[in-house]
Amino acid sequence: MTDIRKVTVLGAGVLGSQIAFQTAFKGFDVTSYDIDDKALDSARGRFAGLVDTYRHEVPGADDGSAAATLDRLALTSDLEAAVADADLVIEAVPEILSLKQDMYRRIGSAAPERTIFATNSSTLLPSDLADATGRPDRFLALHFANRVWRFNTAEVMGTERTDPEVYRKVVDFATAIGMVPIELHKEKAGYVLNSLLVPFLNSAAALAAGGYAEPADVDKTWKIATGAPLGPFQIFDIIGLTTPYNIMAHGDAGAQKLAAWLKENYLDKGKLGIASGEGFYRYTD
Amino acid sequence: MTDIRKVTVLGAGVLGSQIAFQTAFKGFDVTSYDIDDKALDSARGRFAGLVDTYRHEVPGADDGSAAATLDRLALTSDLEAAVADADLVIEAVPEILSLKQDMYRRIGSAAPERTIFATNSSTLLPSDLADATGRPDRFLALHFANRVWRFNTAEVMGTERTDPEVYRKVVDFATAIGMVPIELHKEKAGYVLNSLLVPFLNSAAALAAGGYAEPADVDKTWKIATGAPLGPFQIFDIIGLTTPYNIMAHGDAGAQKLAAWLKENYLDKGKLGIASGEGFYRYTD
Repeated sequence: MTDIRKVTVLGAGVLGSQIAFQTAFKGFDVTSYDIDDKALDSARGRFAGLVDTYRHEVPGADDGSAAATLDRLALTSDLEAAVADADLVIEAVPEILSLKQDMYRRIGSAAPERTIFATNSSTLLPSDLADATGRPDRFLALHFANRVWRFNTAEVMGTERTDPEVYRKVVDFATAIGMVPIELHKEKAGYVLNSLLVPFLNSAAALAAGGYAEPADVDKTWKIATGAPLGPFQIFDIIGLTTPYNIMAHGDAGAQKLAAWLKENYLDKGKLGIASGEGFYRYTD
Repeated sequence: MTDIRKVTVLGAGVLGSQIAFQTAFKGFDVTSYDIDDKALDSARGRFAGLVDTYRHEVPGADDGSAAATLDRLALTSDLEAAVADADLVIEAVPEILSLKQDMYRRIGSAAPERTIFATNSSTLLPSDLADATGRPDRFLALHFANRVWRFNTAEVMGTERTDPEVYRKVVDFATAIGMVPIELHKEKAGYVLNSLLVPFLNSAAALAAGGYAEPADVDKTWKIATGAPLGPFQIFDIIGLTTPYNIMAHGDAGAQKLAAWLKENYLDKGKLGIASGEGFYRYTD
């Protein structure tokens, strides 16, 4: 159960549009904000695409409920109006600290006192943003994974200043929109998933970069040993190599060497993963 | 195809007996060596158990072929006789450097020139043992995983002195006994599997030990995100917590802290994993 009814999602990019759509799909009134008419036009395209995706990929969503989701989705480029009556604001704007801080300052004044703010930031900690919100007790992170209808974890992470009741409300909200809430008890860069995935992918990359074993053999080993459907290099290709590269490039000396290897042998050759047709494997679709 | 016909397995413990049984099951003549009559009696018990396991778990092995495997398995406690006509010796004795070196010195004199030696050592590098064999060109590592009939990777890892033709023969042999050979191009502590598994399990342990998230939530996250059937803490429980503890205790400062946490909260309370009825989860069977 949740007493959150009206949800505003700031940013209608890949993940912002998914969060907005999933929330509306589950019956909430959602306002999707982006910066100007051009961005909103893109957002309309994304939402139309999501109707189609849900119809095909979400069980039961071909009964008209995917299309009807659009009726609960309002789009606007007026930030103050977007948050003026929101119970919850989920922020999914680009990962630039000053941009997010400015936005929190603006909505901090414009939103009612009751409004909870949640950031979907992958790379910033909520404590980096808490002061800018002007309501650190009603602020926390709610972190989604790409393709939210399928990879439906929602990592919930507060700061030391987050009101436990607010935390609990957001956990309940995550459940209400069909997510599996993953509760973090304190702040951790990378949350749970990237805290596992980054060292896992780095260790795989180190085997290939060091010339110890071929990616396909590394994948085979992992799959046989753990029963997993995907080995680390298949996961690299699904994620796309650019994001792991950026994380490695900002890591320690060992990680930076892996980044250089990834750049030279893959990124610079246009091998970016499944989306580019080739990464560690070739794809012919 | 392989021209290896006669195989001797040194050590009839958990893994040695599995390697010997699997090799005989696939039609090879196998000599299983262990140190004395008492050890050989244990080995007989293990082999009888494996007949039963194969009957139930290996497709097609309930046609009498599991039982018939025993006809191709000879047991002996005479080391020199055990290797006197072997094409391949697979060593799976306890992980004590001096013990292994002594054994290699003895079989180095007793085995014919043609015999290939392979160590199943998990923790030593083959180059630690190569000199003791007296035949470094015909020596390499062939590393199996527990429950070889199911987790059928065989990691093949030579030293700089291993003859490539010998390496190739052992790869072919691994295939011939139903393993998936995983070829390492150079020496790597932990081979492929543990090079992935150790940082993966350590990063999971760090999340729980640091109080960031509960083991069950960590597992849930991994399973949803990657489609894997098992999360890291379920894998801990299957492996048993003692081996990861030993690896952590020999690791860097961070790993040693995790070892201390594992000891205090789990090992010291008798929570050793599935085998003890409880680890990170409780088991009621």
